[in-house]
Amino acid sequence: MRYKIVLEYDGSAFHGWQRQKGCRTVQGETEAALAHITPGAAVTASGRTDEGVHALAQPAHFDSDSGLDPETMMRALNHWLPEDIKVKSCSYAPAGFDARKSAKRKTYEYVMYVSPVESPLRRTRECRIGESADVAAMRAGAAALVGTHDFSAFMSSGSSAKTFVRTVYESDIRTEGDRIIYRVTGNGFLYNMVRIIAGALMRIGRGEKSPASVAAALASGDRREMPDIAPPQALYLVGAEYEEG
Amino acid sequence: MRYKIVLEYDGSAFHGWQRQKGCRTVQGETEAALAHITPGAAVTASGRTDEGVHALAQPAHFDSDSGLDPETMMRALNHWLPEDIKVKSCSYAPAGFDARKSAKRKTYEYVMYVSPVESPLRRTRECRIGESADVAAMRAGAAALVGTHDFSAFMSSGSSAKTFVRTVYESDIRTEGDRIIYRVTGNGFLYNMVRIIAGALMRIGRGEKSPASVAAALASGDRREMPDIAPPQALYLVGAEYEEG
Repeated sequence: MRYKIVLEYDGSAFHGWQRQKGCRTVQGETEAALAHITPGAAVTASGRTDEGVHALAQPAHFDSDSGLDPETMMRALNHWLPEDIKVKSCSYAPAGFDARKSAKRKTYEYVMYVSPVESPLRRTRECRIGESADVAAMRAGAAALVGTHDFSAFMSSGSSAKTFVRTVYESDIRTEGDRIIYRVTGNGFLYNMVRIIAGALMRIGRGEKSPASVAAALASGDRREMPDIAPPQALYLVGAEYEEG
Repeated sequence: MRYKIVLEYDGSAFHGWQRQKGCRTVQGETEAALAHITPGAAVTASGRTDEGVHALAQPAHFDSDSGLDPETMMRALNHWLPEDIKVKSCSYAPAGFDARKSAKRKTYEYVMYVSPVESPLRRTRECRIGESADVAAMRAGAAALVGTHDFSAFMSSGSSAKTFVRTVYESDIRTEGDRIIYRVTGNGFLYNMVRIIAGALMRIGRGEKSPASVAAALASGDRREMPDIAPPQALYLVGAEYEEG
């Protein structure tokens, strides 16, 4: 049987999603928990998350002949998982389901806050912009990303992607008290793409770049126009969407 | 000159506020930072916080003949302080001000959440009640604490308090999404008092105790009626109030 699970994790103490020898990774820990139930089974996520990046909802799948019903499977996995990874839901996967290949859209959020000083209580979950921020300018910059573009200017080198064209469906800013939250939905994301966008938006918020710089960088494809990579601890994978299949 | 500061700290890695040989404490780290400016100066807070408890706003005072203006003092302290403690504001203290003795009221919040599973991203900042909670019952239990009472039933042994009578001005529950936040304001709190209250409210929320058990425990003064101490990582000192003086 193939199971679909949704994981939440605190990325702080992981070298990202992908299994690596000698490193603590989310995939490695999840497969180690599953090995108590089905030895050797692989766990496939909707996509990798990088070192230090969190997930509120990371869909994944695995195959198991354990015969466990989904509720029991979830309890068993949560028993074995460490406290910084938990299964939030579990179901039988629809026929042909593949958490990575079937994913149509993914959504990330990047959480910033406005304050004259760094916040000790937020430092592991959010990123400070500065004493104030021009939210309207940030929103204009974010909106310029919507559509199908070559995102070469918003990608770190080291990517194995064959094409740098991606479609962004939603790219917007909302505020909650002193928080400024960037939300982006796309059909896929290049290496460090969301963190590079967040870095650009923070510069725009501080008045160090104009909202028009986003369209200019899309047109030029030049990464030097977008030199910042915002820190990982404020980035959350908030979900992936699938077509019924 | 006497300075008043307001500190924010992440209590996770501290053995509480109070200076102790061989332990990392908030007072110890703050005095170590201040020693770069005024060697040997003591820092006095509105009150101690216990191991693992956070502060969004902990007022404190110290004396310094450095001649630094408050803005410069704040920057200098924040330069020397570790990332889990920061000064949020700094001013000259009014004449006769003492952060501990002049405090008239203190306010704490205890942050709970409702979920079928533990949340990896909240585990260092909040406490899970369970799959659901009876908020109306919790609110009734909380309201029963308002007034001047002997709080012996809500105190851990080991306290040096001379009287167990305290006045609670506000004791209420609010909800924010799936969060249930308990807020209490009083003229002072006994050892572990807020965490014992929070433990009782969580039992009430789960239907394991009645709201009436709170008044019964106040009347009997028997700690065995309130056996739980809720974990520290969900407790926040949110402020202390002073009369102008």
